[in-house]
Amino acid sequence: MGRRPRGAAVRGGGCAVVFRGGGGVIRANVFLPAVILRSAPYTLELKHAFGIASNTRTSTPATLVEVEHDGIVGHGEAAMPPYLGESQATAAAFHAQAAALLAGARDPFCLEELVPAIDALAPGNAAAKAAVDLALHDWIGKKLGAPWHRIWGLDARKAPVTSYTIGLDTPEIVREKTREAAIYKIIKVKLGRGRDIDRMMIDTIREVTDVPITVDANQGWTDRAEALAMIEWLAGRNVDFIEQPMPKGQAADTAWLKARSPLPLVADESCQRLADVARCAEAFHGINIKLMKCTGLREAQKMIVLARALGLKVMLGCMTETSCAISAAAQLSPLVDWADLDGAVLIRNDCFDGATIVDGKITLNERPGLGVTKKAAA
Amino acid sequence: MGRRPRGAAVRGGGCAVVFRGGGGVIRANVFLPAVILRSAPYTLELKHAFGIASNTRTSTPATLVEVEHDGIVGHGEAAMPPYLGESQATAAAFHAQAAALLAGARDPFCLEELVPAIDALAPGNAAAKAAVDLALHDWIGKKLGAPWHRIWGLDARKAPVTSYTIGLDTPEIVREKTREAAIYKIIKVKLGRGRDIDRMMIDTIREVTDVPITVDANQGWTDRAEALAMIEWLAGRNVDFIEQPMPKGQAADTAWLKARSPLPLVADESCQRLADVARCAEAFHGINIKLMKCTGLREAQKMIVLARALGLKVMLGCMTETSCAISAAAQLSPLVDWADLDGAVLIRNDCFDGATIVDGKITLNERPGLGVTKKAAA
Repeated sequence: MGRRPRGAAVRGGGCAVVFRGGGGVIRANVFLPAVILRSAPYTLELKHAFGIASNTRTSTPATLVEVEHDGIVGHGEAAMPPYLGESQATAAAFHAQAAALLAGARDPFCLEELVPAIDALAPGNAAAKAAVDLALHDWIGKKLGAPWHRIWGLDARKAPVTSYTIGLDTPEIVREKTREAAIYKIIKVKLGRGRDIDRMMIDTIREVTDVPITVDANQGWTDRAEALAMIEWLAGRNVDFIEQPMPKGQAADTAWLKARSPLPLVADESCQRLADVARCAEAFHGINIKLMKCTGLREAQKMIVLARALGLKVMLGCMTETSCAISAAAQLSPLVDWADLDGAVLIRNDCFDGATIVDGKITLNERPGLGVTKKAAA
Repeated sequence: MGRRPRGAAVRGGGCAVVFRGGGGVIRANVFLPAVILRSAPYTLELKHAFGIASNTRTSTPATLVEVEHDGIVGHGEAAMPPYLGESQATAAAFHAQAAALLAGARDPFCLEELVPAIDALAPGNAAAKAAVDLALHDWIGKKLGAPWHRIWGLDARKAPVTSYTIGLDTPEIVREKTREAAIYKIIKVKLGRGRDIDRMMIDTIREVTDVPITVDANQGWTDRAEALAMIEWLAGRNVDFIEQPMPKGQAADTAWLKARSPLPLVADESCQRLADVARCAEAFHGINIKLMKCTGLREAQKMIVLARALGLKVMLGCMTETSCAISAAAQLSPLVDWADLDGAVLIRNDCFDGATIVDGKITLNERPGLGVTKKAAA
């Protein structure tokens, strides 16, 4: 791993996306074989049931993607919590389109052409698109013989600690889960279920640990005055920031809250893609970038550049994901203020080795591309 | 060229900038030698005297920089037209500081650490900083065995045509220079010397050629109504856009002009660095990025991302420069709308082979890094 095959200097003849039409190959390439994309469903089994009573689930549908070209295989992944509207079936349909496009691509390097072309195949499908973007990045990094954090010029040692999420549960189980999370330097709590339940969650965690807490309200607070009161209460309990305090549609209320909040507000549902970043600057102090909502690393990197130029804080988040997508996000993590990249430790069938969490800190390796290798099948 | 030396896989142990203090090396690195920076003055001899009567010059002071580490040498250049305040002496002083910093750097890959650290050494010195940024990029590209346009995911065939600049002169000489510029698909004209001279320049060029003209007013128009009248006159003469119509200090007047101008307005003096981009969106349709004013490729790439996110057009410009700095800018050129990268063809002692201009179009090669090789000394 990591060495370029001899004789395979990184050169090419350009990046045309060549479509195969009814009349055969329109612009043939006789020198290089096609870029091959394969995808297959893979269901992530959760260690603990996830979410709230009305919406508990024990697995997350995912799709694994491979891009093969010139003897190198790049890996990618789409993780698709059902409430976001994608499924293994929609991913399969999207990847069939993407495979046809890549079959005509001369050169996987041209991401500034390929990624927009893939994005334009269909609206939505953010996770399916991310899977292709990740596999192409993995391929390129392997071809260059370098991990993406190095290609981007980042210091792996600046990778942040990650938070670990404690879901809504009984005080007894919350106490137990908090104790189990002792290696983590930050705890993330999902609130927004009503003042009493929210306070119970925080008080219960504070019985066990003093580490900083980050709060994800998941659009749960609809009254701005009550939201402010809650944030003021949280500010006295070593809370670092609040994710998405109010519904996406209440931007004006969130801007009102921003002007008064003693804690930073971070956009999650309000910030899906690059085009959302600039308008978030008014109502939020920062944005939460997730590869599965922003279509992958290429757009994520641009979102970070834009956010920094606008003076916004940056958080990297995730779904439940294998170490493939988590390692991809980890490559960017030295650039961000906060990370919530615990997705791979929440599943029991992680089929990749990649970035790890050591003593609560994201720990990059020097393997090329996304830094992942697929585990041998059991 | 282009192959990684065997055994030199792209790995490293992180990116700490280690400063040598009075007490010796603070954090020693026993595995890798230091990053060595050398710089030397080099005076660019112009083919034609440049500028207007009161400020004609026949050379441009420059400084060449080399970064050496791990058996690879990266090349960079500072081109310093005197009116911008830098000189070979200021560059030498700055590069002495940069050399001390790099002597303690473990790893030239960590540009997100090194470039800000170099920027922080002293205010100003944009061209001297760019020289170091360029040399580090050249080094990294050579180490990865890939040109930067490929590392950035760009399609070399999308590199734009470049304009060729015709300076103020007598009608006879302007006609002659325009005829000599027949390979160029766009002519750039510097105006702002008064209505009659400005019109004479355009009319004279139009006697010879119908190719699009771009106008650089160099802050020369101070009355907004007169500026608008001139732009309306130019709009009827196949002019593509106007660079910096009014003085930097007249942002409100320029915004007034933007609301009325039939041609796009492009910020030059008003847009030096990344921090200037957002505020240019109000008064301009686009920005002109020059490596020598923005401190190099790392910041230029971010300026392009930000400009695109704000809906701005992007132009890449240059000073009189060797093919070293021109090739560096050319690496980014597939991302931009307009390029004015004629700097190397304006000098008679270009000491680099690099990107070329073929039939008016910027033409990238597949050599690694900046795509440059130093010519053997005559």
